[in-house]
Amino acid sequence: MATIELQISLILLFALAGYLLSSRINQSAVVGIIIVGIIIGPSFLAIIKYSDAIKMLAHLGAIMLLFAIGLEFKNREIYQTKYLLIAFIGIILPWTAGYFLANIFDYNFQESMFIGVSLTATSIAITASVLKEMKKLNTPAAKAIIGAAVIDDVLGLLALSIAAQSVREGNIELMKIVLTAMKAAAFLIAGIFAAPYIKKLFMKLDEQGVAKEFPDFLFIMSIMFCFLYASVAEIIGLSAIVGAFLSGVVLEGLKFKNSKDLKEGAEYLHVIFGAIFFISLGILVNLKELTFNILPFFGALILVAVLTKVIGCGIAAKMVRFSNSESLIIGFGMSPRGEVAMIVALIGLTSNIISQNLYVSIVMMSLVTTVITPVAVRNLKW
Amino acid sequence: MATIELQISLILLFALAGYLLSSRINQSAVVGIIIVGIIIGPSFLAIIKYSDAIKMLAHLGAIMLLFAIGLEFKNREIYQTKYLLIAFIGIILPWTAGYFLANIFDYNFQESMFIGVSLTATSIAITASVLKEMKKLNTPAAKAIIGAAVIDDVLGLLALSIAAQSVREGNIELMKIVLTAMKAAAFLIAGIFAAPYIKKLFMKLDEQGVAKEFPDFLFIMSIMFCFLYASVAEIIGLSAIVGAFLSGVVLEGLKFKNSKDLKEGAEYLHVIFGAIFFISLGILVNLKELTFNILPFFGALILVAVLTKVIGCGIAAKMVRFSNSESLIIGFGMSPRGEVAMIVALIGLTSNIISQNLYVSIVMMSLVTTVITPVAVRNLKW
Repeated sequence: MATIELQISLILLFALAGYLLSSRINQSAVVGIIIVGIIIGPSFLAIIKYSDAIKMLAHLGAIMLLFAIGLEFKNREIYQTKYLLIAFIGIILPWTAGYFLANIFDYNFQESMFIGVSLTATSIAITASVLKEMKKLNTPAAKAIIGAAVIDDVLGLLALSIAAQSVREGNIELMKIVLTAMKAAAFLIAGIFAAPYIKKLFMKLDEQGVAKEFPDFLFIMSIMFCFLYASVAEIIGLSAIVGAFLSGVVLEGLKFKNSKDLKEGAEYLHVIFGAIFFISLGILVNLKELTFNILPFFGALILVAVLTKVIGCGIAAKMVRFSNSESLIIGFGMSPRGEVAMIVALIGLTSNIISQNLYVSIVMMSLVTTVITPVAVRNLKW
Repeated sequence: MATIELQISLILLFALAGYLLSSRINQSAVVGIIIVGIIIGPSFLAIIKYSDAIKMLAHLGAIMLLFAIGLEFKNREIYQTKYLLIAFIGIILPWTAGYFLANIFDYNFQESMFIGVSLTATSIAITASVLKEMKKLNTPAAKAIIGAAVIDDVLGLLALSIAAQSVREGNIELMKIVLTAMKAAAFLIAGIFAAPYIKKLFMKLDEQGVAKEFPDFLFIMSIMFCFLYASVAEIIGLSAIVGAFLSGVVLEGLKFKNSKDLKEGAEYLHVIFGAIFFISLGILVNLKELTFNILPFFGALILVAVLTKVIGCGIAAKMVRFSNSESLIIGFGMSPRGEVAMIVALIGLTSNIISQNLYVSIVMMSLVTTVITPVAVRNLKW
């Protein structure tokens, strides 16, 4: 067994190879890192083992990733009713279509639930970075995509919590779903309402006493806060990453005079642990499990993944008076599933709800939608 | 068992309490955090368990700490013959004094050997972080402390292997000692000689290709590099933190045009994981094991531990032309034993060479020297 130092240095080395690959194939870094993860995993080279230590570091990576994403969200941007419609249809349609597709392919209730949920959340990180690369961030279509993707991410994580709970209990009990949804809503609303007070506390501390004396103090406090929210989210039955995301949103926009910068610090933490996270997503994929008999389902899953978002969000966009071409761009822009689908798949796999080949199908679906979007969005008429 | 999120958020919360305490008692943050660690550990409240996950994160903390410290050191400043004298006396005097003290208290040869060795190695982590906090890292005295402590750490680990071997086989085999010493020297020298080439590689990458495209690339590469050096150090029989420190020294002074800043990033990582490291140093201490009949020896051990380093290294510093006050600072700066003494004690305990209360005495000695140093160094005239 390699020491933890050696394991980490190897994983980071492979993450660097992932960046190189991304640069070569002109894709987002995430895509390259996951592909390298797949190559070094059991599918091909089987160099790196998914040890308990790596598993834990990858989990911290997912938390830091969502915290960093949260830190980029303004509360106000989430509250636009026209984005709400796009987001809502972009959740309901993929979820139900995924569920019924899985049903047609004879998957049981638990598996179908997870497949449906894995199709829901749009990856903000990926879409936003593509739009940024194209310098289109200030167009109305781009704003709609990001606004809706934000809501989608929260709703998708909520869907995950609901699915995980109903799967744990073996059936859908409406009361329990309502209860989870209410707890989640209460947590989110309380989090958002507490935001100004928490921000004020940070700002006040920055100006005086211990935080003024030690510039590290507020940074440690923010990370403590992130893990506290993650714990609370888990305790009330949500995913830990929902809490991490919310804590980021709560702390968004803080700028200090005396203390270390939160956003910058979260960025550095997420760069390292995020790399471990994305590499381990790849390591967990065993393409050998993508056997011939699952290929028809796999193909159908990708088709459903793309079409439900393109058509669903596209029609919703049209309904709130975007032009045809804008609606198509919004539809494709909402397609990449990215890390949330992978986290859903990972939770499904590690809690023995979905099998290895389903896990691989979902991760590959997420990868494919992630790669399709930039290609489509680039070639559409803006 | 609490989730890892809850454990981390609690530990960071207690670290914040440590900062508050430090601020109140006007001491270095390290002291406050370790004291809070003792209070929440088995000695008093027994709130936090030293789980495997926390152990690993604390270990990463020690590595990140030494990496960050290394990044502040220029090559030329470490390898100075005058530091060698300070380091050498700082090993020989505590070793022999500890051995004879143990003899006086009727401990046998094996026990006395281990007690002597446990007094040898200065903990760079603690002294350096105190100096860093005090923004004194660039003073001549601080440079002497760090330079000598690095050599000390290497010599201390060498002493451990000599003691372990002589205790195991009943004699000392010169060849094996020379071999370990040569491997250590080769590693340190090779590391320093490679530095300009490695720096040039980083600078070249910053200007072109993948690193220019992705500002995270070189930061990940530097952390990969840190863990790689740590691994190599462990493989050749040194402490991992010596490797981490050396990798920092190698990358010292790099400034990029397009990439994230290494020093800044390492700082953020070490803030969080360093807090976990210092809290867990406290958690490891169980004051209840310190029974009445061992108190006389315990008191004498602490006295010898402090005096041999303060007087030994102080006189050595004076001999190489430091001023009186600088020599005193260097003497106290060389006093904290930290994790190396604890490792020596642990090896002695697990190989049935020393008893449980001797083990606790050594750990407590290490802790007391660790707490005395920041107090002394802060209050001495610089």
